[in-house]
Amino acid sequence: MQKYFITKNDLENFRITGDDCHHISTVMRFKASDRVLVSDGDKSYLVSLKSISSNEVTFDIIEERIGNVELPVFVSIFQGYPKGDKIEEIIKHGTELGANQFTPTLMKRSVFKLDPKKKEAKLARFNKIAKEAAEQSYRDRVPLVDDIIELKKIDFSSYTHKILCYEENAKNNELTNFKSIVSNLNKNDKVAIVIGPEGGIDDSELNYLKSLGFISASLGPRILRTETAVFYCLSAISYEMELKK
Amino acid sequence: MQKYFITKNDLENFRITGDDCHHISTVMRFKASDRVLVSDGDKSYLVSLKSISSNEVTFDIIEERIGNVELPVFVSIFQGYPKGDKIEEIIKHGTELGANQFTPTLMKRSVFKLDPKKKEAKLARFNKIAKEAAEQSYRDRVPLVDDIIELKKIDFSSYTHKILCYEENAKNNELTNFKSIVSNLNKNDKVAIVIGPEGGIDDSELNYLKSLGFISASLGPRILRTETAVFYCLSAISYEMELKK
Repeated sequence: MQKYFITKNDLENFRITGDDCHHISTVMRFKASDRVLVSDGDKSYLVSLKSISSNEVTFDIIEERIGNVELPVFVSIFQGYPKGDKIEEIIKHGTELGANQFTPTLMKRSVFKLDPKKKEAKLARFNKIAKEAAEQSYRDRVPLVDDIIELKKIDFSSYTHKILCYEENAKNNELTNFKSIVSNLNKNDKVAIVIGPEGGIDDSELNYLKSLGFISASLGPRILRTETAVFYCLSAISYEMELKK
Repeated sequence: MQKYFITKNDLENFRITGDDCHHISTVMRFKASDRVLVSDGDKSYLVSLKSISSNEVTFDIIEERIGNVELPVFVSIFQGYPKGDKIEEIIKHGTELGANQFTPTLMKRSVFKLDPKKKEAKLARFNKIAKEAAEQSYRDRVPLVDDIIELKKIDFSSYTHKILCYEENAKNNELTNFKSIVSNLNKNDKVAIVIGPEGGIDDSELNYLKSLGFISASLGPRILRTETAVFYCLSAISYEMELKK
């Protein structure tokens, strides 16, 4: 079933406004009495559509949807800014896999150069991708894509667990650090995961992150691309914490 | 370090031929005495380059590389043929994550229509993507991308474990089947994983696969895109079998 994230104000007025109306009327071609899910980011509701136009859709609430589809821990991805459009792929699939926050991070080996004039438009686009992926995967919350920022300006002090994905650990056959942390996570822990760009992490960045309490870890014996590392981390946390034997 | 897969004949003659020579001479701009890894698909060697041209590169073997970077189980992905170029993304990242075989599978809800004239070229391209991803991730083996085939023509009899990723299980909050299987895998088991295309699995396909012994399973409470499901399965198998606490 299709899910739409709407504002609290629109929820109180039993209506959907903005781009989603076009999606409902023209892309999905929904009709009156068709059912969709709506969420204000806190709670989700099954609703029946009443009137449909390209700029406003109204609905009746049928019932509140109870059920937790959010990862039991808060996972924030600090992604060394990669080449091309990879950051969009990371936000899209990372949202499906349950990440709560993405911070595009400028690191020494990031090829990307930030054009300040384009920053707001980029962030708006990234957050739209996160919203659509959250709707597609039936999430209750839309992850935040935070400001594009330099590594050394990030405040990691609120995180209970800090993991640095580091390919040299894979080359040295280190296979325990990641699982030791993930298998001991508790509900509501806050996990920061730093992943380097294509060229990896610079030595000074490695030492800086270690000084902040980050544990460097491999994700198995193969060398993963930067975007694949994000998918691995989130999948493994879900497998460990959400699936049962 | 860069890795190249070469033929047994080329290995016996201490040479690299074909497209890789262009990559070595022009893309990477390697010089004599630079070191790379070569593999014939069985064993990997650290070699020192001797002469370099755009159609032949020669080398001396320095040492055999011992070390296992292959998943301890044989995983074959039967991927319901998805839209657009997604199959290429699945082969690329799935190879990094350790899959041994991919079978692009024509299923009822696949939008893709196979043009027989283009089949050979497509398969050649898919296998090239697998080779490059295997080199990039330092694998010892290049996964095979098998023929594009209809679901009912596939012989699953050699597989010890058969998993069907089925989103209805996620909607019904089934969270035990996948982990029950994966946490009991043993070295050298053969695992078949069937993943539907965007529209999912048809009821008749579901019943057919169940009759062959497939277990339907969710991959957590969120609804994953078809390509994300592949990444989840392989990451979880690696986390379970390759990482240690």
